[in-house]
Amino acid sequence: MRKSGDEFRTIWQKPDDSAIVQIIDQRRLPHEYVVVDLVEWRDGATAISDMLVRGAPLIGATAAWSLYLAALEYRDRGDCVARVLAAADALAETRPTAVNLRWALERMRVVIANTDGDLAASLAAEAARICEEDVEISRGIGRHGLTLIEEFAARKSGEPVNILTHCNAGSLATINYGTATAPVYFAHAKGIPVHVWVDETRPRNQGSQLTAWELAENGVPHTLVVDNAGGHLMQHGLVDICITGTDRTTRTGDVANKIGTYLKALAARDNGIPFYVALPSTTIDWTIADGLRDIPIEERDPDEVRKVYGRSGDGLCFVDTLASDTAVSNYAFDVTPARLVTGLITERGICDASEEGLSDLFPDARATTI
Amino acid sequence: MRKSGDEFRTIWQKPDDSAIVQIIDQRRLPHEYVVVDLVEWRDGATAISDMLVRGAPLIGATAAWSLYLAALEYRDRGDCVARVLAAADALAETRPTAVNLRWALERMRVVIANTDGDLAASLAAEAARICEEDVEISRGIGRHGLTLIEEFAARKSGEPVNILTHCNAGSLATINYGTATAPVYFAHAKGIPVHVWVDETRPRNQGSQLTAWELAENGVPHTLVVDNAGGHLMQHGLVDICITGTDRTTRTGDVANKIGTYLKALAARDNGIPFYVALPSTTIDWTIADGLRDIPIEERDPDEVRKVYGRSGDGLCFVDTLASDTAVSNYAFDVTPARLVTGLITERGICDASEEGLSDLFPDARATTI
Repeated sequence: MRKSGDEFRTIWQKPDDSAIVQIIDQRRLPHEYVVVDLVEWRDGATAISDMLVRGAPLIGATAAWSLYLAALEYRDRGDCVARVLAAADALAETRPTAVNLRWALERMRVVIANTDGDLAASLAAEAARICEEDVEISRGIGRHGLTLIEEFAARKSGEPVNILTHCNAGSLATINYGTATAPVYFAHAKGIPVHVWVDETRPRNQGSQLTAWELAENGVPHTLVVDNAGGHLMQHGLVDICITGTDRTTRTGDVANKIGTYLKALAARDNGIPFYVALPSTTIDWTIADGLRDIPIEERDPDEVRKVYGRSGDGLCFVDTLASDTAVSNYAFDVTPARLVTGLITERGICDASEEGLSDLFPDARATTI
Repeated sequence: MRKSGDEFRTIWQKPDDSAIVQIIDQRRLPHEYVVVDLVEWRDGATAISDMLVRGAPLIGATAAWSLYLAALEYRDRGDCVARVLAAADALAETRPTAVNLRWALERMRVVIANTDGDLAASLAAEAARICEEDVEISRGIGRHGLTLIEEFAARKSGEPVNILTHCNAGSLATINYGTATAPVYFAHAKGIPVHVWVDETRPRNQGSQLTAWELAENGVPHTLVVDNAGGHLMQHGLVDICITGTDRTTRTGDVANKIGTYLKALAARDNGIPFYVALPSTTIDWTIADGLRDIPIEERDPDEVRKVYGRSGDGLCFVDTLASDTAVSNYAFDVTPARLVTGLITERGICDASEEGLSDLFPDARATTI
């Protein structure tokens, strides 16, 4: 599998055995590039809950492909459809915050309801469509976000445009190109000098382990910093623009994203730096208006904080950083209120982080869900 | 050596050999409690630059005791005084941000200039005075800060007062009690229910490795969180008050503290939560008024970000968390402007983070240095 460029994919059918779906075990990057076979739908569920895959769009795609595996697994049983639907219910519980997961499963349920013939073939076709649509969405985000980077480049007379991002809203979080990274990749491909400040993103280190890896694979200049550093960088004029992703966006423009995003948005506002959030419209939850009140924030295993993964000597291992009796709290996301978001970069264009902004761009989606 | 309580000290003369000064190797906490001998003054310099000791007051004390070791080392040489003064110059260069280092060395230089007899004995006496004065300063900060915690306790009817702190401004950063932690220890000793949110404090993990350790040793309830989490906690009413330390305070009340402090101050303001900074008056730099412009911010070895220390199986080791070619930037401090600081807790009382506030409390110090 290619590790960068237009052909890159984060999920695909195994070339010589279409009954197997393959993913990258993202927990092992950047130290090892390991492709994992999903053979049963439960493999997909585990891949989501154990974070072999993460990122709202890729979580949705993995759930979709898992239902294809379920249809293969149960194809000779009389209760095949019921069992596939039960798998969909179980997959919906694997992660609570990302809205794409529910959206992708809903699309698959529609196909299940409307298929008389080969269910597995229909579900494979729909999962593939979800993936290719996601690539098109990332391309759209890239094209629109590129205009922002071009504006800064025009003022910087050859100096790189400095972009700060948090977590991984990159190729690895989607099918290709990413959301927050898509404008960066498009700018880089066009020859615009860019430099990315990559937040480490504790506790799972998606910045140091994933974003840094994929930017390196694509040749994009970048520097890793700890999550604590962004405010200092902004105070000293070292950041031109912040772009992050989001796992769920309210219809009013509040964004739930990786824990710590809110702190960067506060620093951006305090220093007059634009703070943009890139998102496929599939992450918009039109049913809710107050992100702080209504978006459930996942609490994950304290071991994610306690144990840090890396290379020691010739091997890879976890080290326990804490005394054995230290209590740990591990909230995975926080909510950045719309008032701190300069704009939302979507596949249809850039809009204000507001109900008006989103409704104007997506009148169709809004009409069908509210 | 006691690991908590009133008798605890972070630096002391070896009981059976007063020509040796002892410290705790703080890099190995919480996994191992290891006492290290400082035999030559250069051992003290290395202890500071390699961060066996850290925290502005303890850095100053270690430099002071190092000059005592220099006087012992050079006592039989004709150029003893010149060599001790050269050691002072070298010690001043070990860390750039903390102002106590320069302050402690200046006190020692005065003793050097005024000693005719046994220089080592005079310097030992002065270093011991600096330490005991620091303990008294921490006690003063504790008494004054206690009143803030009591105010919250009065409103919480038995529920613990939730205090968020960043880095380690604890016993381990001073001689005992700490600065930010002193009010917490005093409240706990008085039976007031408290709970401390401990920021992990990447990259050196002073929160998870030091603050969590000393709070546990002293029986104070606490929970570790990643640096990214504080904003979320504040948004959800889980923090009553923030208290941090500072490595250097301008006469106008700007504070340089561990990188990331600024982000927590922004979140506190956004959520209407008081943000206090605890400091001995020795960290006030009366010569500067603009912290962002005039406080030098140390950049440290990228390996501090790259490598994480912890327990693996039966042993202790570092793991390399990054791909080998990832560029890293490692700023150690940031500056929180006075406008974000609710108040300064000093050994003489609590004041506004402003030139007026500090001048009113410390008219003597201000008069002699401006």
